[in-house]
Amino acid sequence: MEFRIIKSPSAGTVDILMRRMGPKVNEELRHADAVGLVQGRMIEMICAADIAEKAVGVTVEDVKGSCPQNMILIAIFGDTASVESAIQEIKYKLEEGKNIC
Amino acid sequence: MEFRIIKSPSAGTVDILMRRMGPKVNEELRHADAVGLVQGRMIEMICAADIAEKAVGVTVEDVKGSCPQNMILIAIFGDTASVESAIQEIKYKLEEGKNIC
Amino acid sequence: MEFRIIKSPSAGTVDILMRRMGPKVNEELRHADAVGLVQGRMIEMICAADIAEKAVGVTVEDVKGSCPQNMILIAIFGDTASVESAIQEIKYKLEEGKNIC
Amino acid sequence: MEFRIIKSPSAGTVDILMRRMGPKVNEELRHADAVGLVQGRMIEMICAADIAEKAVGVTVEDVKGSCPQNMILIAIFGDTASVESAIQEIKYKLEEGKNIC
Amino acid sequence: MEFRIIKSPSAGTVDILMRRMGPKVNEELRHADAVGLVQGRMIEMICAADIAEKAVGVTVEDVKGSCPQNMILIAIFGDTASVESAIQEIKYKLEEGKNIC
Amino acid sequence: MEFRIIKSPSAGTVDILMRRMGPKVNEELRHADAVGLVQGRMIEMICAADIAEKAVGVTVEDVKGSCPQNMILIAIFGDTASVESAIQEIKYKLEEGKNIC
Repeated sequence: MEFRIIKSPSAGTVDILMRRMGPKVNEELRHADAVGLVQGRMIEMICAADIAEKAVGVTVEDVKGSCPQNMILIAIFGDTASVESAIQEIKYKLEEGKNIC
Repeated sequence: MEFRIIKSPSAGTVDILMRRMGPKVNEELRHADAVGLVQGRMIEMICAADIAEKAVGVTVEDVKGSCPQNMILIAIFGDTASVESAIQEIKYKLEEGKNIC
Repeated sequence: MEFRIIKSPSAGTVDILMRRMGPKVNEELRHADAVGLVQGRMIEMICAADIAEKAVGVTVEDVKGSCPQNMILIAIFGDTASVESAIQEIKYKLEEGKNIC
Repeated sequence: MEFRIIKSPSAGTVDILMRRMGPKVNEELRHADAVGLVQGRMIEMICAADIAEKAVGVTVEDVKGSCPQNMILIAIFGDTASVESAIQEIKYKLEEGKNIC
Repeated sequence: MEFRIIKSPSAGTVDILMRRMGPKVNEELRHADAVGLVQGRMIEMICAADIAEKAVGVTVEDVKGSCPQNMILIAIFGDTASVESAIQEIKYKLEEGKNIC
Repeated sequence: MEFRIIKSPSAGTVDILMRRMGPKVNEELRHADAVGLVQGRMIEMICAADIAEKAVGVTVEDVKGSCPQNMILIAIFGDTASVESAIQEIKYKLEEGKNIC
């Protein structure tokens, strides 16, 4: 699992992400303070999306079209503190190594 | 073979799964108590789907678009106990190492 | 080369296979007693399909969409004995190591 | 580079190949005595197709949809002797190791 | 991460890039003095795009269709000095090894 | 980086290449004396295309649909001497190992 946080993402960066998110994306995400990116194996990332979804103040989307082998990327939009805290939560829960989340 | 169980999956997580399941998915799956994810080589996962289908109280779908190499992901929806028991059954039968299931 | 035989496949399992077989699949395959799965490198699997086609009492289809690297999956439908015998034949002929089948 | 020759290919086998060849395939290929399959890296296979095209009595097609990594499959239709001789020619010329064919 | 700078790119080269950029590309990019190419893992390249976007005098696009495993390519258009400086910035920031950019 | 030169390519070989080049290919390429094939990592091949484009007497196209991992193939059409000289130029410039071309 690998992650990055982009503070104040540029419009072009959000465009690159949004073009890979499908047609009915919430346009409000363009104004998010930060975006967190988490990349990992598919089965892990669905858990990661669930953990982030249950966190406060963030919206989670999966970024298609990356065509990795068995890897997907999710993007977590929100204010910087919420994104950081959602990613901490994902790291903590996935690294616990339990199969139930 | 790798598996995860998500209890009370968030709406966003079920959305991510459903968008990868094709157009005529049963909308009732949105209200499942739990979803089990099983990932493995294609030939194994078709057996896994069959084992889970024959278990009680769960619905099985394959999750497309993961573009893995030779791997697919299946999702097993149902109440938590049924999902856990279907996954136990899959582990038991696939690990027996027999070619007939 | 890897293979599995599913006896009395569940309706959901046959659905997963059929959705990956293209639009004009023979609906009668739904009532097959057994389905054999054979997975291997593309060039081998075309030979395997040919060997199975020449066997008695089975129907062979290739299962698309698995997006493996250089691997495909074929499904062999028929009664259990015919499926088992077609797979024996494939194993025997491919393992002979001759380039002509 | 790997190759196989199928003598008297079954109708189903020719179907599997034809479905991966695009819409305007010559239907007469269905009646070929033999089909040779050659699989290798893309750049080699284009040379192989050219060598076979220049051989006598065979028709060459590339088989799409195998989604390999950097590999493609070509099919060489014709009578058995012509297919065998085209494949000998490919082996000989590609193994010479020259970059010009 | 790997990069290249093409000075005075030929029309054909810009065409190859543009055909992989989607329909609504800015035609003015055809007249850019230079194009920088940066290739790396998806999660890194989204950060790289953001760093370049925040640099002065360049336009960033992602180049689709390369179908790599977990890798994407971005193209940075602008005058030679701006492209070089954007790439220096990317190298510096990504090699810092921080997860926040 | 790997390359091959096909002298007097057969019509079928040019067809295989053209079908992977998109709809608006210059039909005159069918009459080229020779075709050079260069295969390598995407970022290198875009530089290679640029170097060949700037050479005299050749036309460069990228060959899609090979779905390699991070590799693409370009085809260089022209008379034999021009194709050979364009490929020499590519080898020389790419092997220099500079990041600027």
